[in-house]
Amino acid sequence: MTDAPPPIFILVRPQLPANIGAAARGMLNFGLDQMRLVAPRDGWPNPRAVAMASGAGRLLDAARCYVSVAEAVADCDYVLATTARPRGITKSVLPPQKAMENARALAAAGKRVGVLFGAERAGLENRDLVPAGAIVSVPVNPDFPSLNLAQCVLLLAYEWRRAAGAPEAFAEIDLAARHDVERLADHWEERLDEAGFFFPPTKAARMKLNLRNLWSRMSLTRADVQTLHGALRQLARRDSN
Amino acid sequence: MTDAPPPIFILVRPQLPANIGAAARGMLNFGLDQMRLVAPRDGWPNPRAVAMASGAGRLLDAARCYVSVAEAVADCDYVLATTARPRGITKSVLPPQKAMENARALAAAGKRVGVLFGAERAGLENRDLVPAGAIVSVPVNPDFPSLNLAQCVLLLAYEWRRAAGAPEAFAEIDLAARHDVERLADHWEERLDEAGFFFPPTKAARMKLNLRNLWSRMSLTRADVQTLHGALRQLARRDSN
Repeated sequence: MTDAPPPIFILVRPQLPANIGAAARGMLNFGLDQMRLVAPRDGWPNPRAVAMASGAGRLLDAARCYVSVAEAVADCDYVLATTARPRGITKSVLPPQKAMENARALAAAGKRVGVLFGAERAGLENRDLVPAGAIVSVPVNPDFPSLNLAQCVLLLAYEWRRAAGAPEAFAEIDLAARHDVERLADHWEERLDEAGFFFPPTKAARMKLNLRNLWSRMSLTRADVQTLHGALRQLARRDSN
Repeated sequence: MTDAPPPIFILVRPQLPANIGAAARGMLNFGLDQMRLVAPRDGWPNPRAVAMASGAGRLLDAARCYVSVAEAVADCDYVLATTARPRGITKSVLPPQKAMENARALAAAGKRVGVLFGAERAGLENRDLVPAGAIVSVPVNPDFPSLNLAQCVLLLAYEWRRAAGAPEAFAEIDLAARHDVERLADHWEERLDEAGFFFPPTKAARMKLNLRNLWSRMSLTRADVQTLHGALRQLARRDSN
């Protein structure tokens, strides 16, 4: 369990460099050191982030910067997304404790887990949630729900550390890598597009998003991914004969 | 339980007004609104604290200021003291979760609980710990233990709320009925059979079983089932044109 790769905390479009620094501190306070950034507003690297990180500057030195969420999670096997308000998204919503227990179990099985955190003001957008297998929602006071980015990171890091002794929930499942699920989603989208499934055109974008969410949410194993590629190939092949 | 008086968070000799404001926000995020201050370095009230508190300014307006810890806890029935390093103190040391569970139980019995937080740099001194019935210690990374004052307040407030028995309002997923999943599995099996997917015949039974397991394992919603029927119909229809 102690050799489990720590989850990667991915800050999506963070605005204030000071919050990135504070997030790095909060992570290191609880033994996490893998940070990634997606399109930080004020550029990267940034000296104001380093100033706020105090002794956690090495996390920032090592933090890689990506242009999109898809690119930032490409090598992750499982993705969690933190958001205060899942609107019309049918994914499991977990409290931080349960989410980090699951992350521990996956990590113990050698899986790489990514956790997405939204920007200070706007949070994550629906399209950012696509790769997520589940949503993490902190049970805040509904009358004053605004959690700062660094605070949200701190709470998840705290729960990661607390979960060190937690039972292993999905350790046995040979989950497909995130990017294999992505390729499966692409394959289905292409073939269904050819088959005229995304109709009417005004609804096509929404239908595609729903279908991608469906694949992400299913905790597909590597064998499942092969089966679903194979089934689709076979169905599509009939047509070309 | 819901009528339990919330614990009073007492900041002892806080230095930075911004941290007092951030602490107020963190408290209100988890439904706490009773703050007291002991000898804040930069005087009180302080506009920089208010600026950082955003919507939690009313906590600061109501926060009373005391000259000593003894005075600040005089009307409390039970006192907890947060510190990273209890040195030669023979009191129980509790993790935040256990401490806040105890605080809930005391509050439910009508007791007023105070929680002491030390200054940013120095923490609490041994003399500050005198009134404490127990010590609360956050299980930080021993190689990087420095928790910011506002972060420590946030974690305790979070655990207070969690200790409520967490009214965990999670999105209810509209899972498909078992027999709808069965019909979906039948539909796929028929179409894939027609498409020659189950080949060679010696492996067909096993492949069918795997595919049925896949649908069962996925926690499909009713909308997912519709989507997967529709996708299959569309793929199969191309052939009959």
